[in-house]
Amino acid sequence: MSDSPILCHLADVIEARKDADRSASYVAKLLHEGEDKILKKIAEESAEVLMASKDGDKPHVVREVADLWFHCLVLLAHHGMRPEAVLDELQRREGISGIDEKASRKPR
Amino acid sequence: MSDSPILCHLADVIEARKDADRSASYVAKLLHEGEDKILKKIAEESAEVLMASKDGDKPHVVREVADLWFHCLVLLAHHGMRPEAVLDELQRREGISGIDEKASRKPR
Amino acid sequence: MSDSPILCHLADVIEARKDADRSASYVAKLLHEGEDKILKKIAEESAEVLMASKDGDKPHVVREVADLWFHCLVLLAHHGMRPEAVLDELQRREGISGIDEKASRKPR
Amino acid sequence: MSDSPILCHLADVIEARKDADRSASYVAKLLHEGEDKILKKIAEESAEVLMASKDGDKPHVVREVADLWFHCLVLLAHHGMRPEAVLDELQRREGISGIDEKASRKPR
Repeated sequence: MSDSPILCHLADVIEARKDADRSASYVAKLLHEGEDKILKKIAEESAEVLMASKDGDKPHVVREVADLWFHCLVLLAHHGMRPEAVLDELQRREGISGIDEKASRKPR
Repeated sequence: MSDSPILCHLADVIEARKDADRSASYVAKLLHEGEDKILKKIAEESAEVLMASKDGDKPHVVREVADLWFHCLVLLAHHGMRPEAVLDELQRREGISGIDEKASRKPR
Repeated sequence: MSDSPILCHLADVIEARKDADRSASYVAKLLHEGEDKILKKIAEESAEVLMASKDGDKPHVVREVADLWFHCLVLLAHHGMRPEAVLDELQRREGISGIDEKASRKPR
Repeated sequence: MSDSPILCHLADVIEARKDADRSASYVAKLLHEGEDKILKKIAEESAEVLMASKDGDKPHVVREVADLWFHCLVLLAHHGMRPEAVLDELQRREGISGIDEKASRKPR
């Protein structure tokens, strides 16, 4: 069940860009700039999700969550990993003990 | 193509928890605490992705990205939205102009 | 006791830049771009503090904390406020009940 | 000029708590929990600054900036550093080339 054609397709495309021309591809440039630049984008997109939500601008929330997830895919690619790993993890938690498993696992 | 059974299933479960007993369900409690608490969790999970990545701990990166995406699903539910909207947005960008559309759309 | 010549001087300079030429002044440009841009910078600098710390690069931590505090001064200026208000708040907490007052005030 | 009695006093108090009873002192507990916990608090407080600002709640902005700066002091203490280093860095930038030095140093 942990499949997502679009996320997996995007991961394929990101991987294919690893060796693309940096001047032509945003992803090639970002992957070349490296981990800290990717992480900074994740922090930035996360902040934009917060601001869009506080603005009550729902279409903007969707766009910023899309940006955030996309840059997570770039980070996974940087580490040689795939979105399937994340979807499997979500599936595993749901499968084992329901969605609230997280609460028991990480009681903050 | 923009389908993801696990993300959509999790969204269903989160929606079903909206009226659940807050003492029994992490999601019910979080939805009841409201937007700021959900956004704080997104900021927190985003920071944990950064730290796991800097630690070079790949399985930890996967778990923290899963946490981050999960709390994005909770935020979408708070706004009465679904992950399909995010996947459609990602699909749309890829469909129209390729993965690097973002660069042209938002030249920072 | 809640005085800091350098922070207050920087606040003066930032205020003076409010009407400066945006093409010549980073601060004038940032203040003109508005709240969301300033907040994004705070999120970004906060992420850079995290990364510098994880790198164990102490001089880098100092530079990033300086960046973070500086952009907080810009945010305060955006809201027509001064660093003295923040220092007074820190002073007040220390004065009333010691540094651990925060713990009792906000038991998370 | 780079002096701030309250920030330096707080740094003294934080240092003195390094060996305090963790059950009695928030700072002693946080320092004991270590770097990741301190960094997570910085990310969290940074997010709260964003949310308070978006709410337009000025006194709340002041309290959250105070929280953010305080946790930066704890991070500095974790690294065996002092707020004077940050104030000196701010002073140095202002001293050398004016407040907009940052823009030329880090043209993003």
